[in-house]
Amino acid sequence: MDFFFEGYLLSHGNVIGFIAGTLTTISFLPQVYYVYRSKKTTDISLSMYLLFFFGVLTWLVYGLILGSPPIIFFNAITLLLSGAVLLAKLIY
Amino acid sequence: MDFFFEGYLLSHGNVIGFIAGTLTTISFLPQVYYVYRSKKTTDISLSMYLLFFFGVLTWLVYGLILGSPPIIFFNAITLLLSGAVLLAKLIY
Repeated sequence: MDFFFEGYLLSHGNVIGFIAGTLTTISFLPQVYYVYRSKKTTDISLSMYLLFFFGVLTWLVYGLILGSPPIIFFNAITLLLSGAVLLAKLIY
Repeated sequence: MDFFFEGYLLSHGNVIGFIAGTLTTISFLPQVYYVYRSKKTTDISLSMYLLFFFGVLTWLVYGLILGSPPIIFFNAITLLLSGAVLLAKLIY
């Protein structure tokens, strides 16, 4: 992996991990907003959110085992947000 | 973190990470199947999938920087699957 800003990337790995975690975590916010405002979840797959919810729960356990604050932090928030969508799917 | 199967968890951290990655990755399969079969994406948030797609892309860059096969492997597949949902949202 040899390209012009490789040095920059290698020295800023953590920042990139933080940006990635932030993006994938906050991405659920618009979906939560939409389902609770519209109260419509027909096109949202229940099995996706069930699998995803338990997957994120498992990432959280993994983060606790590793003692890795970023993995714990991002997955705890994603668990809440994806849980909110899952709940909306079950209610509406 | 002291509970009865703590020892088991600590020694099986990688397995748990693998299970977590598998669950969150395959969770997109039912959503991909649904949107391409129904051709309906009204309730799916475009901004969620845009943010999520670029977030997963950033995780992939992070995995390449770290040289971490699991992070690369799972995020490459999630990129394809979430990209397929994003594409469906743009088409339908």
